[in-house]
Amino acid sequence: MKIIENGSITTPKGFKASGVHCGLKKSKKDLALIYSEVKCNAAGVYTNNIVKGAPIYVTKEHLKDGTAQAIIINSGNANTCNGEIGIQDAKAMAYFASFDLHLKPEDILVASTGIIGVPLNLKLIINSCSKLALGLSYDSSDAASAILTTDTRKKECAVSFTLSTGEEVKIGSICKGSGMIEPNMGTMLSFISTDINISKNLLNEALKKSVEKTYNRISVDGDTSTNDMVLILANKLSGNNEITEKNKDYFLFLDALTKLNLIQAKRIASDGEGATKLIECTVCSAPSVTDAITLSKSVINSSLVKTAIFGSDANWGRILCALGYSKINFNPNKISVSFKSTNSEIEVYKEGMGLKFNETKAKEILIQDTIEIIINMNSGNSSATCFGCDLTYDYVKINGDYRS
Amino acid sequence: MKIIENGSITTPKGFKASGVHCGLKKSKKDLALIYSEVKCNAAGVYTNNIVKGAPIYVTKEHLKDGTAQAIIINSGNANTCNGEIGIQDAKAMAYFASFDLHLKPEDILVASTGIIGVPLNLKLIINSCSKLALGLSYDSSDAASAILTTDTRKKECAVSFTLSTGEEVKIGSICKGSGMIEPNMGTMLSFISTDINISKNLLNEALKKSVEKTYNRISVDGDTSTNDMVLILANKLSGNNEITEKNKDYFLFLDALTKLNLIQAKRIASDGEGATKLIECTVCSAPSVTDAITLSKSVINSSLVKTAIFGSDANWGRILCALGYSKINFNPNKISVSFKSTNSEIEVYKEGMGLKFNETKAKEILIQDTIEIIINMNSGNSSATCFGCDLTYDYVKINGDYRS
Repeated sequence: MKIIENGSITTPKGFKASGVHCGLKKSKKDLALIYSEVKCNAAGVYTNNIVKGAPIYVTKEHLKDGTAQAIIINSGNANTCNGEIGIQDAKAMAYFASFDLHLKPEDILVASTGIIGVPLNLKLIINSCSKLALGLSYDSSDAASAILTTDTRKKECAVSFTLSTGEEVKIGSICKGSGMIEPNMGTMLSFISTDINISKNLLNEALKKSVEKTYNRISVDGDTSTNDMVLILANKLSGNNEITEKNKDYFLFLDALTKLNLIQAKRIASDGEGATKLIECTVCSAPSVTDAITLSKSVINSSLVKTAIFGSDANWGRILCALGYSKINFNPNKISVSFKSTNSEIEVYKEGMGLKFNETKAKEILIQDTIEIIINMNSGNSSATCFGCDLTYDYVKINGDYRS
Repeated sequence: MKIIENGSITTPKGFKASGVHCGLKKSKKDLALIYSEVKCNAAGVYTNNIVKGAPIYVTKEHLKDGTAQAIIINSGNANTCNGEIGIQDAKAMAYFASFDLHLKPEDILVASTGIIGVPLNLKLIINSCSKLALGLSYDSSDAASAILTTDTRKKECAVSFTLSTGEEVKIGSICKGSGMIEPNMGTMLSFISTDINISKNLLNEALKKSVEKTYNRISVDGDTSTNDMVLILANKLSGNNEITEKNKDYFLFLDALTKLNLIQAKRIASDGEGATKLIECTVCSAPSVTDAITLSKSVINSSLVKTAIFGSDANWGRILCALGYSKINFNPNKISVSFKSTNSEIEVYKEGMGLKFNETKAKEILIQDTIEIIINMNSGNSSATCFGCDLTYDYVKINGDYRS
């Protein structure tokens, strides 16, 4: 598998995209379209939040037959908690887009992100549908911008790999997410395109499995959004024979998809609102993967750990505390804790007690952009890594200080 | 029941206290003693964090017989994650205090609060034990100060009520807690004195029940400390006949104890690190009390709700989101959300949709020191109120910015 430089959602065969400013935001692009020249097998995973954005109901409905051909996305308004009108508006987005694309509305999936509880200004979207369709091209840049909210940068990626039968397959993605992030599924949105030929069932399963290991292992602020969605369109243009069983090629695909989603998930975590550092917390030698995830998430969700990382403080006490209230049982006298960066690693806690360590070396590690916390449970064979970010003044400013 | 003005831990008959500076902190008081002139029935509740401070092991040991006569507390060092040496040090605190007090070490309970993972400087404590014992008086002020860490103020309280048999009973308390607070039990420390005559079992039960409804319903930052403890000493000096069954007088006592603990718990929440506002979130008409607590805690723990309150923003969308990821099932179209202060109330969400509301009136409510969020689930008869505080720049500064 290789990562394609400057790859994006339009890298796989037969995918186009566009993005325009329709007026939901002041001046930035706020309406995007992803389109495949041929019909696709498709799948989606959605937030587990009981409160769900209207688009989720409509997209689930349209995905009942396991196929789709386009995705329309607006930012600036989540179209959530708008009652029955919100659902009608989400349906209307697909309806009006369908004219210009010569598709059935049910072939179009819908997503929204932004503020909750403000009715969607549907007229603005309707008025821009033609412009959106006409703007479709192999340049993904506008679409990648149009889906953002508080993100500071676009998040585009593509990978390629070769099937055992020789065909090259590409997978591409644009995503967004910065605050209100603890995907379970997890407003993080990720759209994935691929030219592989794969059955609906296996596409669905591969999506779920890869999401579990990637987007579901990030937390920016512990607030699982109402609108989280990951959608994948597979348009078969690689020309391979349809993958219908979990053979070698299925696993090649799953592996590449997971790696792509991991890249995107880490970008979301490191672009967390106000974040200055990406935190990767690996819990290893745990009794089970679910235990490892719970322990790891407890650490990256802890306000005290997040602020300590902001302050470049090798504060293992707060890490121990977070592990200790995770509701997973363990013996504090068996575990060890280390901090790690690309070039350096220090152990700070072992078998029940803090260790003396070189403060300068610790500081060098903790001022980096990416900090790894490694926790060895010494009680099994399972491990998991979760991703988060530090808690800074800017998080408070972005979310609480409306004078600024 | 009435609240006693300027009441404290020394208000009930036969209780004394003292507080000194032994050197654990730079200059502030850091060593406290609570003492009863006669032996007491005693009970304790402790953190559920798997990582526990050494004092917890020793205190539990000393409380096996259900009696005690004094409590020694240090601040500035949690004596946690210090291995076997930490446990020995905690035992030594009781041992050395026992000389000057003419008690057995097992009659003395031990508590510590402060930084984790730094060995306790036991010498400093030993050298101050005599001064501490000699300083015992009916003035609680020094003790109340000596137990504090990042608190901005002392937290003292006392109540009195009359038994059906005519005797007056007093209950007093000093407590502390500001950061690393989501008691389950929950470093919050609370020490309670009372002159009531009650059996060990009922004392234990009353403590647990009252803690459930009070300290266990606060969260400052969702980080349940390693050292949380609530201890009660009952020295019988009211002169009533021992309460041995759950009769009218037991419930009078439980009621007064709960009210006292509620006052203290709210003080801890409103003195949360960096807090400018106390948030009281009441979930009512829920199917069960546990559901109501889980829903309420999800709201007060949400970083996005906390920052919105800091910004005086009537952002019900974030409240809906927090309810939605609480893992409690409910129908968003049945619930309503209101904001309330002493003089004013506005409903902002009802039956699936946001309501238009007077922004000025909302602002007037949200700039107050205490803000109530009322959530009506419209699906049962149970309710619960949990307490938290806003998330501000100062929280980040206190916990992450070591340059300051």
